[in-house]
Amino acid sequence: MRRIFSIAVTVFALASVATYLAAASAHTDGEADPVFGIKIFPGYRDWKLISVAHEAGNLNDIRAILGNDIAIKSYREGKQSFPDGAVIARLSWNYVPSEENNKIFGRDQSFVAGSAPDWYLQFMVKDSKKYAATGGWGYAQFDKDGKPADAAKHGTCYPCHVPAKDRDYVFTRYSP
Amino acid sequence: MRRIFSIAVTVFALASVATYLAAASAHTDGEADPVFGIKIFPGYRDWKLISVAHEAGNLNDIRAILGNDIAIKSYREGKQSFPDGAVIARLSWNYVPSEENNKIFGRDQSFVAGSAPDWYLQFMVKDSKKYAATGGWGYAQFDKDGKPADAAKHGTCYPCHVPAKDRDYVFTRYSP
Repeated sequence: MRRIFSIAVTVFALASVATYLAAASAHTDGEADPVFGIKIFPGYRDWKLISVAHEAGNLNDIRAILGNDIAIKSYREGKQSFPDGAVIARLSWNYVPSEENNKIFGRDQSFVAGSAPDWYLQFMVKDSKKYAATGGWGYAQFDKDGKPADAAKHGTCYPCHVPAKDRDYVFTRYSP
Repeated sequence: MRRIFSIAVTVFALASVATYLAAASAHTDGEADPVFGIKIFPGYRDWKLISVAHEAGNLNDIRAILGNDIAIKSYREGKQSFPDGAVIARLSWNYVPSEENNKIFGRDQSFVAGSAPDWYLQFMVKDSKKYAATGGWGYAQFDKDGKPADAAKHGTCYPCHVPAKDRDYVFTRYSP
């Protein structure tokens, strides 16, 4: 009986790892966004941190902004604009109080990353020729299952970023 | 006159880059914390993201939790406890509204990472033998200038983490 239990635990553990590994590498060969033709970048979850933010209001998320090596280098050198090849990823999670942490602290002070919302993953991709019509950047949004948002949603990206033109259309500043 | 101006701009730009590069690599050979003997880990700012959080109350910071490769691997495999060599870094910045972003959005909804507070940088270092008396983890806190907090402050780390013993004393969960 103990042996069966042990085997069951092992099988369950292996299945969990397999599920995790599948999730970690999923969607990178998936569907491109319908406007800019951008697919999810392989390995984006391993990219280096640019900064973090909380977006209140309707979105009510907490987010990490990561960059590929070209973007990180450009940020760290304090460049005014990004070179072609720079990619910035924005990962969002629902902004939730942590009940388990607050129980320890004795008050509601800890807000953490919860489940992934429909706007989980966004990319800005710098290609000054390909995306000349939208300030040199292509934009893409995917949900946690790797499904791109529709064309109408993608039409809203560039207009919202235009007021940040002085910062090469990028809202996020680097946090040392 | 124009040439002098141009030279001045160039010198200023080079100085800025030099200052930045110095800041990026500073403090890694600095002072160890006075209780656990931990120094700032070289390259911690390049580590992979575990998750993000907002700590309200007295701290009122927004934070990123990063891990070295051993910690990230352990998280991603869903392990219950961390192996020796795992290091978790917690970087905090003051939690501030972004005036430049809110002006664009037309309302106060964007909260970003501001300047670094005195508790800018913390590490948890797993060494089950060396730190057996504190649950197998050593703790260290440094300010933005690389100065470790005092011994009294370091005495508060472990007691606060004890209630999270079931999670191997680690508060932060991995955000996929």
